[in-house]
Amino acid sequence: MKKTTFAAAAFLVAGTATIAATPAQQKANEAAFDASVSADDQLGWLKTMSSAPNQVGSPHDRENAEFLLARYREFGWDAHIETFQILYPTPISTLVEMVTPQHVVLGGQEPPVPGDATSSNTAGALPPYVAYQGDGDVTAPLVYVNYGMPDDYDALARLGVDVKGKIVIARYGVGWRGLKPKLAQEHGAAGCIIFSDPEDDGYHDGDAYPKGGARPPQGVQRGSVLDMPITPGDPLTPGIGATADAKRLTRATAPTILKIPVLPMSYGDAAKLLAGLDGPIAPRTWQGGLPFTYHAGGGRAVKVHLAVRSDWSLKPIHDVIAMLPGVQADQWVIRGNHHDAWVFGANDPLSGNVAMLSEAKALGNLWKQGWRPQRTIVYASWDGEEPGLLGSTEWAEAHADEIRRKGVIYINSDTNGRGSLDAAGSHDWQHLVNSVAADVIDPETGASAAARARAKLLERAYQGRLARDDPQYIAAEAGADLPLAALGSGSDYTAFLQHLGLPALNLGYGGEDESGGVYHSAYDSFDHETRFDDPGQKYGAALSKTVGRIVLRIADSDTPPQRFGDFAAAVGRYLGEIIKLADSRREGDRLREKMIREDAFRIASDPLHPMLPPPAVMRTPHVELAVLEDSVDRLKASAAGYDAAYADRSSSLTPAQRARLNAMLRDIDQLLMNPAGLPFRPWFQNMVYAPGRFTGYGAKTLPGVREAVEERRFADAIAFAKTIAAALDAYSDRLDAAKALVEGK
Amino acid sequence: MKKTTFAAAAFLVAGTATIAATPAQQKANEAAFDASVSADDQLGWLKTMSSAPNQVGSPHDRENAEFLLARYREFGWDAHIETFQILYPTPISTLVEMVTPQHVVLGGQEPPVPGDATSSNTAGALPPYVAYQGDGDVTAPLVYVNYGMPDDYDALARLGVDVKGKIVIARYGVGWRGLKPKLAQEHGAAGCIIFSDPEDDGYHDGDAYPKGGARPPQGVQRGSVLDMPITPGDPLTPGIGATADAKRLTRATAPTILKIPVLPMSYGDAAKLLAGLDGPIAPRTWQGGLPFTYHAGGGRAVKVHLAVRSDWSLKPIHDVIAMLPGVQADQWVIRGNHHDAWVFGANDPLSGNVAMLSEAKALGNLWKQGWRPQRTIVYASWDGEEPGLLGSTEWAEAHADEIRRKGVIYINSDTNGRGSLDAAGSHDWQHLVNSVAADVIDPETGASAAARARAKLLERAYQGRLARDDPQYIAAEAGADLPLAALGSGSDYTAFLQHLGLPALNLGYGGEDESGGVYHSAYDSFDHETRFDDPGQKYGAALSKTVGRIVLRIADSDTPPQRFGDFAAAVGRYLGEIIKLADSRREGDRLREKMIREDAFRIASDPLHPMLPPPAVMRTPHVELAVLEDSVDRLKASAAGYDAAYADRSSSLTPAQRARLNAMLRDIDQLLMNPAGLPFRPWFQNMVYAPGRFTGYGAKTLPGVREAVEERRFADAIAFAKTIAAALDAYSDRLDAAKALVEGK
Repeated sequence: MKKTTFAAAAFLVAGTATIAATPAQQKANEAAFDASVSADDQLGWLKTMSSAPNQVGSPHDRENAEFLLARYREFGWDAHIETFQILYPTPISTLVEMVTPQHVVLGGQEPPVPGDATSSNTAGALPPYVAYQGDGDVTAPLVYVNYGMPDDYDALARLGVDVKGKIVIARYGVGWRGLKPKLAQEHGAAGCIIFSDPEDDGYHDGDAYPKGGARPPQGVQRGSVLDMPITPGDPLTPGIGATADAKRLTRATAPTILKIPVLPMSYGDAAKLLAGLDGPIAPRTWQGGLPFTYHAGGGRAVKVHLAVRSDWSLKPIHDVIAMLPGVQADQWVIRGNHHDAWVFGANDPLSGNVAMLSEAKALGNLWKQGWRPQRTIVYASWDGEEPGLLGSTEWAEAHADEIRRKGVIYINSDTNGRGSLDAAGSHDWQHLVNSVAADVIDPETGASAAARARAKLLERAYQGRLARDDPQYIAAEAGADLPLAALGSGSDYTAFLQHLGLPALNLGYGGEDESGGVYHSAYDSFDHETRFDDPGQKYGAALSKTVGRIVLRIADSDTPPQRFGDFAAAVGRYLGEIIKLADSRREGDRLREKMIREDAFRIASDPLHPMLPPPAVMRTPHVELAVLEDSVDRLKASAAGYDAAYADRSSSLTPAQRARLNAMLRDIDQLLMNPAGLPFRPWFQNMVYAPGRFTGYGAKTLPGVREAVEERRFADAIAFAKTIAAALDAYSDRLDAAKALVEGK
Repeated sequence: MKKTTFAAAAFLVAGTATIAATPAQQKANEAAFDASVSADDQLGWLKTMSSAPNQVGSPHDRENAEFLLARYREFGWDAHIETFQILYPTPISTLVEMVTPQHVVLGGQEPPVPGDATSSNTAGALPPYVAYQGDGDVTAPLVYVNYGMPDDYDALARLGVDVKGKIVIARYGVGWRGLKPKLAQEHGAAGCIIFSDPEDDGYHDGDAYPKGGARPPQGVQRGSVLDMPITPGDPLTPGIGATADAKRLTRATAPTILKIPVLPMSYGDAAKLLAGLDGPIAPRTWQGGLPFTYHAGGGRAVKVHLAVRSDWSLKPIHDVIAMLPGVQADQWVIRGNHHDAWVFGANDPLSGNVAMLSEAKALGNLWKQGWRPQRTIVYASWDGEEPGLLGSTEWAEAHADEIRRKGVIYINSDTNGRGSLDAAGSHDWQHLVNSVAADVIDPETGASAAARARAKLLERAYQGRLARDDPQYIAAEAGADLPLAALGSGSDYTAFLQHLGLPALNLGYGGEDESGGVYHSAYDSFDHETRFDDPGQKYGAALSKTVGRIVLRIADSDTPPQRFGDFAAAVGRYLGEIIKLADSRREGDRLREKMIREDAFRIASDPLHPMLPPPAVMRTPHVELAVLEDSVDRLKASAAGYDAAYADRSSSLTPAQRARLNAMLRDIDQLLMNPAGLPFRPWFQNMVYAPGRFTGYGAKTLPGVREAVEERRFADAIAFAKTIAAALDAYSDRLDAAKALVEGK
């Protein structure tokens, strides 16, 4: 520890203080915090933790948990390991081979590459596979389904290609991995292969590893295909913690486990299958980066044998939970990042995990110097994120009542790397994130993280890759706060935000790293990380300083620094998008009807490459959203009223008023939860933010209405508009009451 | 000839009539015309004409001219061959080889492919080359310049890569071929290679030839790199006919011949060079269809030896000119298609040439049955189009005065194939083209050509590939006349439209053919044409029926069927585009200034893959276009006034009035010519339609203003707005006078 830190300690808030830090004290705390953040620490921890395969159930996964536990304790935290028992299938055998036109065995473990030390150390790794596929042994003709998304099946139908009884091969991208076999299964496919097309994360992004960082021909993306848009977490204990004695479903009755066998594949292997496909030429946008013509297949030209057998026993997962008790012990600021990986996981997730560990060390140092946070700080290193957000979901479910009662916010990170700050989350925290980004210096350019994020957006617009009416461009151009992206799913914030109603943030640097090229492969290694993703972990340190500031500013605030006007504006923007969406779909429906009536689909079709007309569907009506528009208007007014009142009168609040105000606001997001959940997925209760049913990770805001319009469930859309409106009205009521309180009424 | 034709002959207009055909007579003539059009004829002629290489100067080029002459005479036309003497360089030796990192000889003639009979008959063909490159022998490092367009050089500068003294390799596409070496030369490059990237016309469009019709790895696109945006035609006789005794420039003083050596290349060869390039990774949009990472090069990794030596002697070209004299002999309806090719040219140009020959036979049959056209019909089969629009340009220059005095319209075709009707040209003829398209039946779907073109546009919009505010979509959706595309250059209409001020049309079917995959290669053969482009020449027959109707309806009209409101609307649309363009560039300039001021380009740049800021340039001002806006308003009013008056009063015109009216309108487009020409290219005089200086083929409408805005010559923009306004005012004056005449005032 450097001397300056000791000097700064003079400004630390006394541990017994019951009022928040002054701006000067806050600044001194942050300087002291920064002084404890060491990129070298992170590099050392990273090397240790990524030295062996550390997937769920592996010895090194357990060792990493113990390593983390020891560090938290060493840093002065009250830490323990919490273990859950999960149905986690591991492959006993995986087989994929071409049987027609000739016999070629494909698949298997990724080979060592020169210069990547751990790539020759995969004895303890699982072979490339996807978790929660259905096991099976099938031989069938192959059909190429592009990204395997709903509109791809619509296009296949227009080409006259059916996947029933076939094995489909889909490329990674556009939608979440797990939707590809799920949709294949729903369309009657017997099996599914998912491959990494070089157009999407291969040589057209950069030189292949190890020359550069992009995906090499033999790199495979592992992953989960658990049906997480229904429920993440242990598939046998939906909604409850997977403790040893929990009541469990059976594998056969678990709704989130697929029924067909699925394997992932490298593009080196996929090229051998795709090159020989027959059937219609695939549409132009389906042509990928491989050097031949992609056909849709479905005939007898290429037949594949696909077989997967798994060990379906329960395995333990080890969450590391660490606390620094606050003056207000029942107010929890929760911060997490997972520690399990698919193989070595140097970037995903360990780059984020060691940044979090740096924060813990820095906070521990503050603690040791006498600082005591106003609110309790909970740091969680989750296990089992990769197979299904297991560790965070089970912990959230097991402690649901306490989290609902005490949780202030959940702050997540995951992968991290060179580049600019990406921030997503609950929009009332948007200004806080922007303020912090203005105070953190980008390690390579010397500009602030905020300035860098804005400059990147301006450059994209300058190059014509970002529209001038995009809210991000408008904000960047004006030098205003950049909008947070909305959270869908894909990391450990899910259970907190979407099941329990805590606000959440997800933060990470990236965009100049090359981790995408080794994502979920055996080459996501210490060597790749330190050559291509964050040499010297400089951006790891930047992440620590960013998240550390957010934690400190929330934990030590009088009242957590929210701005409800930003939330109201975001909801207004989302409602506007849905109205536009409905209009545009109505126009598309009208055009389809006209074209069917006039036989224009047939007339437009090339008789030698025919495209069938799409099926006739009900035209999108004008959807009654006025009740929701009114509620959004009211929300905007109430939010503006509260924000102004708080800015004006905050300093005159008595401690009792302050306590009542904080209690009012702490759980305000829980008003946005629908106890009945979203259609088809009761576990997801947040009516503003959700992952899409057909995007998987990607957010669908106001999902009850938006997805109903997309899926032509127009009665649902109208009903949900009312339900959301009522929730927003309750939210406005709460803000109005908070305003009255602040104004002393 | 079928019996029905003889029956229809009863309705033929008597040859001595001085008034035009009635609608019933016109219809009968068209039916008789159709009956003479034979796809089998076309197939037979095509087989003969494409049986041997027929480039300029070859024996078979001469034989084809003689063959055509004999056919026209056989069909009853007054035909002759008109010969010009052209500086046409043919390669004595072409050499391209990689010398670093290893020695690999590239280039040479395309090899035979199975199933393509003529591909083994290339003894009389020239090796792959481009005409009018500069000859030379250079060895230098290679730089990849994407499409080699101006913005590609801007991007290279931001990457810090200089092409001075280097050999550049550009891919075909985006801009016209000849601009690539011209811009390379202007940037100081020592040589230029142009290759066919498979992303642009290779395997991602369809299976490679001969399995499918797309470009095979060894296919090379030949072509001209004459600086045609300055002047097409013989480079030694700009502006005058290249007769034997014409006064000639020398090769050294000819402004349109390049100074550096250039060769075209297949992607099979280009892959060997590109795979090894060093330097920065090329931008994402520069990555093509080859299976590796494209780098910009410029270092020592890849060095190339490029050498070309040519025979620069004069060669003869043979235009075949055929006439059917009209009752009004001094009114010429001119129709052309070239007959020379790069090798066999079954699709380009013979598919169009044999369709034209069918028209000539059908018109000859009408003539033999006693029909006499009201106006003289001139059919021209041009030679030397490929190297530089030689035959049409020299003929137009040699007969300029007569064409200006007699020409009513020039109607062109070139390649043709399966698909829908593409029509471009002078917009007062838009309604005529649409009316004809409504009367011609698509041979594969049974719909009219007009319905098919509309259905294709609706399908594109339905698939999200055509914007709902595109004028084409708006017209298709409304069932209205589809807008003609504006003519730039790239075929034989150029001299007529842009040098002499005749209105012009260019017509062809396509979009479902695969001729793009063999364009300008030795595989553009009879076998490719009959397998992939127009099996049975059914679309050849459709083209004959389309153009034949246009010729008949113009030749036999009282007054040629123009609608000036369509022209005025098009000019108004183009002016609107320019105003938007200036606004958008001003906004881009403002953003660039702000980003330079705030150092945002540097801050946005990835320090490991740096992008330099663009240079500061003068901000686009508000350009004074009000005078032009007023003229366009007046043009719209005058056009509407004339169109309405003519529709109302046409039937009451006396023969003398009719003659005066026709004289007024025949040369009205010549009012749009600027005798001083366009900036930097006095040969191009049309102030409404021109090929772009930096597009080569693609049209730039109102070029004097549009290109001035694009090229930041703002004073030119203002000056040209006035010049165009004056021309449009003169056009309006003429229409007003015509209206007064029609109204008997």
